[in-house]
Amino acid sequence: MCRWLAYSGEPLRPSTLILDAQHSLVAQSLNSPLGAETVNGDGFGLGWYPDGAVAGSVPALFHSIEPAWHDENLRELAENIASPLFFGHVRAAAGPPIQQTNCHPFRYDNWMFMHNGFLSGFERYKRDLVLAVDPELYPLIHGTTDSEVLFYLALTLGLRDDPVAGVEAALRKVEAVARDHDVAFPVQATIAVSDGATLWAFRYSTQGMTRTLFHSVDIPTLHQLYPDAERLRVFGPRARVVVSEPLNDLPGTFVEVQESTATILDAAGGYDYRPIMAA
Amino acid sequence: MCRWLAYSGEPLRPSTLILDAQHSLVAQSLNSPLGAETVNGDGFGLGWYPDGAVAGSVPALFHSIEPAWHDENLRELAENIASPLFFGHVRAAAGPPIQQTNCHPFRYDNWMFMHNGFLSGFERYKRDLVLAVDPELYPLIHGTTDSEVLFYLALTLGLRDDPVAGVEAALRKVEAVARDHDVAFPVQATIAVSDGATLWAFRYSTQGMTRTLFHSVDIPTLHQLYPDAERLRVFGPRARVVVSEPLNDLPGTFVEVQESTATILDAAGGYDYRPIMAA
Amino acid sequence: MCRWLAYSGEPLRPSTLILDAQHSLVAQSLNSPLGAETVNGDGFGLGWYPDGAVAGSVPALFHSIEPAWHDENLRELAENIASPLFFGHVRAAAGPPIQQTNCHPFRYDNWMFMHNGFLSGFERYKRDLVLAVDPELYPLIHGTTDSEVLFYLALTLGLRDDPVAGVEAALRKVEAVARDHDVAFPVQATIAVSDGATLWAFRYSTQGMTRTLFHSVDIPTLHQLYPDAERLRVFGPRARVVVSEPLNDLPGTFVEVQESTATILDAAGGYDYRPIMAA
Amino acid sequence: MCRWLAYSGEPLRPSTLILDAQHSLVAQSLNSPLGAETVNGDGFGLGWYPDGAVAGSVPALFHSIEPAWHDENLRELAENIASPLFFGHVRAAAGPPIQQTNCHPFRYDNWMFMHNGFLSGFERYKRDLVLAVDPELYPLIHGTTDSEVLFYLALTLGLRDDPVAGVEAALRKVEAVARDHDVAFPVQATIAVSDGATLWAFRYSTQGMTRTLFHSVDIPTLHQLYPDAERLRVFGPRARVVVSEPLNDLPGTFVEVQESTATILDAAGGYDYRPIMAA
Repeated sequence: MCRWLAYSGEPLRPSTLILDAQHSLVAQSLNSPLGAETVNGDGFGLGWYPDGAVAGSVPALFHSIEPAWHDENLRELAENIASPLFFGHVRAAAGPPIQQTNCHPFRYDNWMFMHNGFLSGFERYKRDLVLAVDPELYPLIHGTTDSEVLFYLALTLGLRDDPVAGVEAALRKVEAVARDHDVAFPVQATIAVSDGATLWAFRYSTQGMTRTLFHSVDIPTLHQLYPDAERLRVFGPRARVVVSEPLNDLPGTFVEVQESTATILDAAGGYDYRPIMAA
Repeated sequence: MCRWLAYSGEPLRPSTLILDAQHSLVAQSLNSPLGAETVNGDGFGLGWYPDGAVAGSVPALFHSIEPAWHDENLRELAENIASPLFFGHVRAAAGPPIQQTNCHPFRYDNWMFMHNGFLSGFERYKRDLVLAVDPELYPLIHGTTDSEVLFYLALTLGLRDDPVAGVEAALRKVEAVARDHDVAFPVQATIAVSDGATLWAFRYSTQGMTRTLFHSVDIPTLHQLYPDAERLRVFGPRARVVVSEPLNDLPGTFVEVQESTATILDAAGGYDYRPIMAA
Repeated sequence: MCRWLAYSGEPLRPSTLILDAQHSLVAQSLNSPLGAETVNGDGFGLGWYPDGAVAGSVPALFHSIEPAWHDENLRELAENIASPLFFGHVRAAAGPPIQQTNCHPFRYDNWMFMHNGFLSGFERYKRDLVLAVDPELYPLIHGTTDSEVLFYLALTLGLRDDPVAGVEAALRKVEAVARDHDVAFPVQATIAVSDGATLWAFRYSTQGMTRTLFHSVDIPTLHQLYPDAERLRVFGPRARVVVSEPLNDLPGTFVEVQESTATILDAAGGYDYRPIMAA
Repeated sequence: MCRWLAYSGEPLRPSTLILDAQHSLVAQSLNSPLGAETVNGDGFGLGWYPDGAVAGSVPALFHSIEPAWHDENLRELAENIASPLFFGHVRAAAGPPIQQTNCHPFRYDNWMFMHNGFLSGFERYKRDLVLAVDPELYPLIHGTTDSEVLFYLALTLGLRDDPVAGVEAALRKVEAVARDHDVAFPVQATIAVSDGATLWAFRYSTQGMTRTLFHSVDIPTLHQLYPDAERLRVFGPRARVVVSEPLNDLPGTFVEVQESTATILDAAGGYDYRPIMAA
């Protein structure tokens, strides 16, 4: 229902990926070839860990209900900050109203979370899911999306101790509750989570037909592939991006993330994969 | 925390009371002498039963997060519709975010509801109140205010059958739940409710120190008091308004609503009073 | 760059055409098959002469910078007013910022004006055009679009006395000024103008390749064509609409307006055509 | 009509002055004791030269039409950037519409400009002033305020070569044009201008009764005055602020800027004063 990207690496201006790339996130907001919806004009969000912030710092958020393609503030901001880890998200609303509290990414302490997809039939079992959220966390739910409830469910079920286990537990909880309400295929999700140091990206749907997700190939390999590409010089050797669809048409630049997989990017560079939601 | 007015009578342009009165609702949004806050700039709402609509019709809503004093659309709309029963509300937010879903009035079928005041300590017991809402109604809560939860609680507890009893039951439920969380004086409320035919206005606080509420004197009496007042000619004989503070300085025009009282305006004209929340 | 529709006839809820039609204006805002841009998400406007207003009355305006497809206020309003003559416009901005003052329709006294298209190279000769506006009218230009300048130019050059001559004079003025700045094909325009009684619709571009414009076939003919069409019963015998692209796929319902033509709809019903901009 | 502050010194989080000070700019937006209007809720702007940017860099802008007191994005941004020179402005609109293009500060290349006050009778002579703007600069006027026209007039008349002379020439031009239109006291202005290195602050009105303007005392002096003040430790020895009204009640912290004076803050620290508009 949406498009997102998550960057980890040397401090970078978000505009590089959000505005300047061939198929930048803002370009995707108007026209996303691989999206279930071609227009993602129902608000956006940018979340970033400031350059130089200490470990455990709270990320900054910028949420807007304007279409990303015409938001001047987004341009100004994305060109004038630098961040070693940031999330960008453009929304195509599927029900819940367009308001800043429904814009991704969501934040809890030093954690950020964003989601593309939906919980099918959410209205029928939202109450049960909300009841499953830790009562201490409950008052912190500020919006009305399925995505934010999913985040607070994962926080309740261990995200902070083990993000992969926490997200898996939340997805299983959704599937169990939805089954009780006769919803066959409740989960459709690509998810990004970060604590400021590590980035976890998930691709999963109950039906096994998940929205696309890609990650970039490592920069040294790209330099070998495209030794003359001026555009690549802005990226440091640890620069990596996970994104709903490729940011350019250069063959070999993006690799599809497998179904039912968590992709883990730690600060050292490289990718680690882990199967999730095995029966 | 807010200012509101509710009109019942012959079809009237809302601008007459919302924009043109000496102390119009929009004037009060910038400066409300009797308000707990002098500025009510955190959005507003207008709800109206269209002129000529059949009994049981759903009212129309206009919600905006702009300050009322500079919203051009509010001016255009208020001058170009006419309604026999409308609500206007300007908000001074006390926590919940400024977004259209948090703007009053709230609506359920042909019912409208708005509130000035707050439920003290709401975050501490919000979850318990939300759990007390009928699960069928729960998915219809779109915003995050205490006021909207209070409305859905009243709907759950009989508002549609007996508005006075329904609101009383909701207020008692809040007081019971708040007491369990050691909140001494939870309710601060002036409330307006309508089904499109009758208007109910409530003034109540646990502590017995409720925000001000006034209603206008009947128009025939006002004509006798001020036989030369040009401005009064726009009003029909059944025109009545209930409002957080008087719309003008003319002595004898507005009467204070008593504490712990429901004031009832039916379509025939006149006022009926009923004590509420007696021990 | 935009899509618009103009209705004249028996009082009608704008929602009938703006929201409920098969290819309603709001549907076109997300996807306009015949548009130069497929997305028209940069604000919208609704202008209407209130039902029952006297001749010469000022129309009401509702302007918003939100995409039309997710604006709740537009829905509420369009379903709860009725008007014998209204304009709707969804914008795809081509430079000038997205702000309410740049939303169509524009208004001067009882006149409304809206435009789809652009003045090519406008920034190069805007100053000269603005200088050609009557200094008395100049302070009333509130936005920064080429369209609004075109309106004030037409007002300066006789629109109020003879709308066809006034618009022609304005278009010729643009062409003359643009020629001085070496712009070959400056005008691209479909335009609607009304004084509250008559509706004038123009289709013209310097190059003779104007954006599409259609008008509906008269209702009695449509009833003969589609005797069983439930949907047509909402329309009175004088109902007519001019629109950037057809509102439905029913063969025979919409007729293309010719190039270099003004189409005139007076209150009596029917269409009148006049060639414009003949050499 | 507005309130503003301008900071120059060691890189600082804008939130220190805009949000956290006793009478911060956001506090002044709701209640400015020395203001001509007590509420400045008609949008705001933040303009900043990014920390580490090279000389001549273009500043970043954040403009919003929401009241500053409830804008979450302003909070996030002001707490998560640092800047050696930034402007903050809260607006109380006196006519021109509330839209981002009317929010201060305005920008041209590496220059920023903001204004508190008004040009009296502006609508009567706006056209003449706009005609006096360099035709090359004319297309860059994006909004509709007197302030922006004043900025472009100053740019036309030499601001970039000599800011004091350029602003003086612009003010004299306004006074001459206004006199031709029989406006007695046209200028009411406190103005801030910067090129990213130096900050110029002006206080002038034709009548000699200009809105208040203050600058802070130098930090070493403040440390001597208040050796135990924890709050002062966040400021470096070159930290200086010019502001519409004092940010706190500490005696000796702020000094009033004299009438008809330009105050100049260069990068080295300290203040320089120059009389302006002498007959």
